[in-house]
Amino acid sequence: MSLPNKHYGELKDSYLFFNIAQKVKKYQTEHPDKKMYRLGIGDVSLPLCDAVIKALHKGVDDQANKDSFHGYMPECGAPFLREKIAEYYNKRGIDITAEEAFVSSGASDELGDIIDMFDRNTSVLIMEPAYPAYVDANVMAGKKIYHLPTSSDEGFLPTPKSAEKEGIKADVIYICSPNNPTGAVYTKAGLKEWVDYANTNGSVILFDAAYEAFIEDDSLPKSIFEIEGARTCAIEICSLSKTAGFTGTRLGYTVIPKTLERDGMNFNAMWVRNRTTKTNGVSYIIQVGGAAVFTDEGQKQIHENINIYKNNAKVIMEALDAVGIWYCGGKNAPYVWMKCPDGMGSWEFFDYLLENIQVIGTPGEGFGKCGEGYFRFSSFGSPEDTKEAAERIKNLLKK
Amino acid sequence: MSLPNKHYGELKDSYLFFNIAQKVKKYQTEHPDKKMYRLGIGDVSLPLCDAVIKALHKGVDDQANKDSFHGYMPECGAPFLREKIAEYYNKRGIDITAEEAFVSSGASDELGDIIDMFDRNTSVLIMEPAYPAYVDANVMAGKKIYHLPTSSDEGFLPTPKSAEKEGIKADVIYICSPNNPTGAVYTKAGLKEWVDYANTNGSVILFDAAYEAFIEDDSLPKSIFEIEGARTCAIEICSLSKTAGFTGTRLGYTVIPKTLERDGMNFNAMWVRNRTTKTNGVSYIIQVGGAAVFTDEGQKQIHENINIYKNNAKVIMEALDAVGIWYCGGKNAPYVWMKCPDGMGSWEFFDYLLENIQVIGTPGEGFGKCGEGYFRFSSFGSPEDTKEAAERIKNLLKK
Repeated sequence: MSLPNKHYGELKDSYLFFNIAQKVKKYQTEHPDKKMYRLGIGDVSLPLCDAVIKALHKGVDDQANKDSFHGYMPECGAPFLREKIAEYYNKRGIDITAEEAFVSSGASDELGDIIDMFDRNTSVLIMEPAYPAYVDANVMAGKKIYHLPTSSDEGFLPTPKSAEKEGIKADVIYICSPNNPTGAVYTKAGLKEWVDYANTNGSVILFDAAYEAFIEDDSLPKSIFEIEGARTCAIEICSLSKTAGFTGTRLGYTVIPKTLERDGMNFNAMWVRNRTTKTNGVSYIIQVGGAAVFTDEGQKQIHENINIYKNNAKVIMEALDAVGIWYCGGKNAPYVWMKCPDGMGSWEFFDYLLENIQVIGTPGEGFGKCGEGYFRFSSFGSPEDTKEAAERIKNLLKK
Repeated sequence: MSLPNKHYGELKDSYLFFNIAQKVKKYQTEHPDKKMYRLGIGDVSLPLCDAVIKALHKGVDDQANKDSFHGYMPECGAPFLREKIAEYYNKRGIDITAEEAFVSSGASDELGDIIDMFDRNTSVLIMEPAYPAYVDANVMAGKKIYHLPTSSDEGFLPTPKSAEKEGIKADVIYICSPNNPTGAVYTKAGLKEWVDYANTNGSVILFDAAYEAFIEDDSLPKSIFEIEGARTCAIEICSLSKTAGFTGTRLGYTVIPKTLERDGMNFNAMWVRNRTTKTNGVSYIIQVGGAAVFTDEGQKQIHENINIYKNNAKVIMEALDAVGIWYCGGKNAPYVWMKCPDGMGSWEFFDYLLENIQVIGTPGEGFGKCGEGYFRFSSFGSPEDTKEAAERIKNLLKK
């Protein structure tokens, strides 16, 4: 009898953000007069927009009165919100119904839970560098994990050919586009290759679209369901965290087409069963707030905030352009992924920026081995700090 | 390659509440002039109390301003709330630290998630009649399930001796006290037997304390951690759903002592790892609202609501007493579990009440086979309807 899930013992401890915090703390103690410029953070800094705040207050007021009070919510999401999400897709010409849109507490929660629908012996493909939780959640589930490393040669956007070259044939394929940490975005043709590959092999794609709202180039796909064939091989996981500043307010959604089946089992029906057994739905108040994001007023206001972040990214990119450094991302994503100069390692460059110009970023190595020699800047800081940081980067790195 | 989790195919469809809804709908269509008295519902009907509403509005306001805005929350819960929860235990003389109290989105969500910490080959013991999700979540995980039926002979409170008599030796033991659906509550001595049994056999108890706030008899344990030895064998899952009317607002908490270990693995540390990998914490706004429940003002207000529900239970019990019907629960629980009169079956009695006096309850059979011949009334309806329903029950069943 072995009672605890032994796979927890196989997890590697992640010291990435802990190490960053320690290094920054040490530096600050030794240099109490220096101001720090934080471009490492993956969290938003702007408050929720007015439309959402008003809706949240209304949600709270509803819970104060007997006639408007809401008890248990439908487990798969409030119909008023599921319909708004479906509309959001329909407006872009994507055929999704309200019953295919599930409300969640956020993408990270959903990415952890959704693994439950797959057989314990399924294998997963994770393209690296990657969001560390993809790997950890699958280690905990005891899944066979194939790591597919990528590089600047393919613009950090691996193709099924790379997987085949490595001899990988996985049941579940994680794709994050726009990507965290690289900011790289698949074209429609690039995604089509993965959709065809999944349909041919009977794989299922878990498509993380958390940064879709940052895409400004209309030719790039914001949803995998823009790709023909995706309705028979993909699940899309999305979040209002970065789209509308909900990192601490918590709301997301997941699209599971009714046409997604494997071995005679229907994933939409399985997820309904999962939610009705394992949850009692998401807070009514938060769902009312979330629905406001999808109104015309809400969309206008959240894009004002997104534009502030996108302008931060532009400021960082201009600095890197000025000193001739290779990077990807930034244009259609909140992250800029740069090659460290002069062959420096990720941590070496981290120390170099901290000690010389007090700018804090994230060493690429923290997202997987192939991230070594790269560095991530986030655009979620304040415009003032980002401007000053960019100026300092430019002055430090110019030859 | 079998991609979907095949255990989903082993789930039995639950028609309990669907069948109830169908029968009620049919009756109403045929008798449009009749008013229905709903004592079946397990959901609360009173709005959130003032202290909570004020706090929720403050939480929303905080998210509207840059200086008070909260991004990502600590995954295991906001320190301000974890401390309040620990205090709630400490005031009752129970030694729990803030780091042992985890914030959740509610008990049902947590009961689904927490199974992840146990090895796939663990077995579970479920005392029946039971909350159906206990069984379903374990079917989905492919666990070996031992059903331990109980009866009025032991007051619907089975002992380890019953388990031994049935030859059951399980790794994980579910205990719900006050019980849903029976309303039965373990004494300290009764719980101590299970704690000793778990410590002797190396089992872990999952203690569902969702109805603890309804206990008025001070000699009965509200927490398993009132029992000596529980810190080395138990996890307690609690909820504000019934305590403070949070069924649609969503908040709960889970206590995992740092002293709970099996096979060299520490469950508190495992749950920290689970939460940090698979969630980004609970909504800041809801946690601010939840913290207000634990203030003096909040406690006073929620107990005013609980007393309204408890008075409903009293009214139902008085009616059953008047006609000499056996029941348990009601006094320290929001549910009254009665024996159907004249040897009627659960569904037969359901139809009898619906057709004769338009009172709706829940057939005991829906909570497991041994619930056949029993019937559950809930005290969460309105006082007016409960009074009228009780009067009708009394008149119908008096000889």
